[in-house]
Amino acid sequence: MFSVCVIGTGNVAYHFSKIILENKNLKLSQVIGRKKELDFEFKLNINYNNNLNSIADADLYLICVSDVTIKEISKKIKDKSNSVIAHCSGSTNINVLKNHKNFGVIYPLQTLTKKKKIDFYKTPLLIEANNRNSFKKINFFSKSICNQVIKCNSDERAYVHVSAVFCNNFVNYMNFISQKILESKKIDPKIILPLVSETANKLVQLRPIEAQTGPAIRKDMVTIKKHLHLLENSDFFYLYKILTNSILKNTDELQE
Amino acid sequence: MFSVCVIGTGNVAYHFSKIILENKNLKLSQVIGRKKELDFEFKLNINYNNNLNSIADADLYLICVSDVTIKEISKKIKDKSNSVIAHCSGSTNINVLKNHKNFGVIYPLQTLTKKKKIDFYKTPLLIEANNRNSFKKINFFSKSICNQVIKCNSDERAYVHVSAVFCNNFVNYMNFISQKILESKKIDPKIILPLVSETANKLVQLRPIEAQTGPAIRKDMVTIKKHLHLLENSDFFYLYKILTNSILKNTDELQE
Repeated sequence: MFSVCVIGTGNVAYHFSKIILENKNLKLSQVIGRKKELDFEFKLNINYNNNLNSIADADLYLICVSDVTIKEISKKIKDKSNSVIAHCSGSTNINVLKNHKNFGVIYPLQTLTKKKKIDFYKTPLLIEANNRNSFKKINFFSKSICNQVIKCNSDERAYVHVSAVFCNNFVNYMNFISQKILESKKIDPKIILPLVSETANKLVQLRPIEAQTGPAIRKDMVTIKKHLHLLENSDFFYLYKILTNSILKNTDELQE
Repeated sequence: MFSVCVIGTGNVAYHFSKIILENKNLKLSQVIGRKKELDFEFKLNINYNNNLNSIADADLYLICVSDVTIKEISKKIKDKSNSVIAHCSGSTNINVLKNHKNFGVIYPLQTLTKKKKIDFYKTPLLIEANNRNSFKKINFFSKSICNQVIKCNSDERAYVHVSAVFCNNFVNYMNFISQKILESKKIDPKIILPLVSETANKLVQLRPIEAQTGPAIRKDMVTIKKHLHLLENSDFFYLYKILTNSILKNTDELQE
C-alpha cells in the first residue's frame, strides 16, 4: 500500500493526515512533529513521533511546516530508494528540496484550519515534480485524495498564492472591518452573514466584473462622500478611500 | 388584500416584485418605471405603466430608484388615506420622504441582480417608519416576505450600508484582482472558486478574527516581500502593501 509520512502538526498536516486515514488505498505511516503530544483535534489513530531522527520509511514524505523551515526539515529526511519528498507551500520554490533525488510540491489551494471541516476532495491540489518518478507518485497520491489535480510550476504557483491572498486573506480582512463597523454602532454583526454568503455564491456563477455593485462602480460620489464622512474618525477611512479610488480607476473595465 | 405599487425597474424593484407576486397575501397592483417596456427577466405577469402620473391606488408605494431621485419621484405620489410611501435605500435618510403623511424605509441587506436567483425570504430587511400606522403596514409587508425583519434607524442603517460596502463591494473587488492576477499568468481563474466559497463558509461559522490567515497575520515578512516582488509592475502592488500594513497594524487583535 502507498505509505505517507506527514511532517508537521499544523492545519495543513492535520487535513492531509485525516484524508489519508480515510482512504483505503493509502497508509499514514507516521506523523512527525516537535510537540510532545498532538492537539486534541488531531487525536486521530496515528503513529506520532516527535523525534525527527526516527522517521519511518514511506513512499511519500509530506513536509507541512512553515515556509522558512522546509529546507532545514527536509535535510533530516534520508532518501530511500524511490521515496519522494514534497512540500505543501504556495510561495516556496520546488528547488528548496533539490538536495534530494525525488522531490516535488503538493499545494492545497484552500484555507485550512483544524476547527473547520472541509471537503478536501474538492480542494484543488497544485502539483509539481522534479522527474518522472516523482511526478508519478505525487500524481497517484494527489488523485487518490482529490478530484482536481493541476500541474503547476513554481513561478505560476507563486502567482496563485498571491491571488489567494487577495481572495482569502484580504477578503477575510474586509469582513473583519465590516463587522467592526457594525459593532461600533452596537449592531449584531450576524445580520451581515446572508450578504457574505451571497457575495461568494455570486462569484461562483458570475465573473467578479459582472458581480461588482456599489457606489464606486456607479461613480456615485454623493454616497461615497457620505460614507467617508461616517468613517471620518475611523481607522478604515483611508482604506475605504484607497479601495474606492482603485475601483473608480478600473471602472471602464468593470461595468454594472 | 394588501396592495403594493413598486416604483422602479432595476434589480431591487425586480426582486421585490417577484416576491410580492409569489405571496398569496399580497397584491402587486402596479410597477411604474421610465422605460417603455420591462426587461426580459422582468417580464412577469405585471401591470406595468411608464407614466408616473397614473399611479394606481395601493397600501404601500415602494420606491426602488437610485438614491438621488428618491425625493423627486416621491413628490409624484399623492397621499391616499392610509397609504405608506417607503424607499429601499441603505444610505438615504428617512426624512427625504417627510413631505408625506406616512412614510418609512425597507432596506434589503443583500446584493441583488436580476441575473441571480436568491432566497429573498432570508434577506434581512431593515425597516424604519415615521409613525405607528406606517410602522404597522411596513412591518406587516416585510414579515410577509422575509423572516428577518429588523428595526433600524437612519443613522444605524447608514453604518450598515458602509459595512456592506466592505463585505460585498470591496470583497468582490478583491476577487476581481485575484482573478486578474491568475489571468495575467494564463491560469484558469476558476481554480480559485473552492477557496472563494470556503472563505465565506468560514465566516458563517467563525468570526473574521478567528478565520484570518496568511502572511500578514503571521508577520511573515519573507512571503510578503516575495509577493510584493511579484506584483512590482502591477496596479495592485500598492493595494497589497496598504492592506498588509493595515492587517499588521491590527495584528494584536487578530490572532491566527
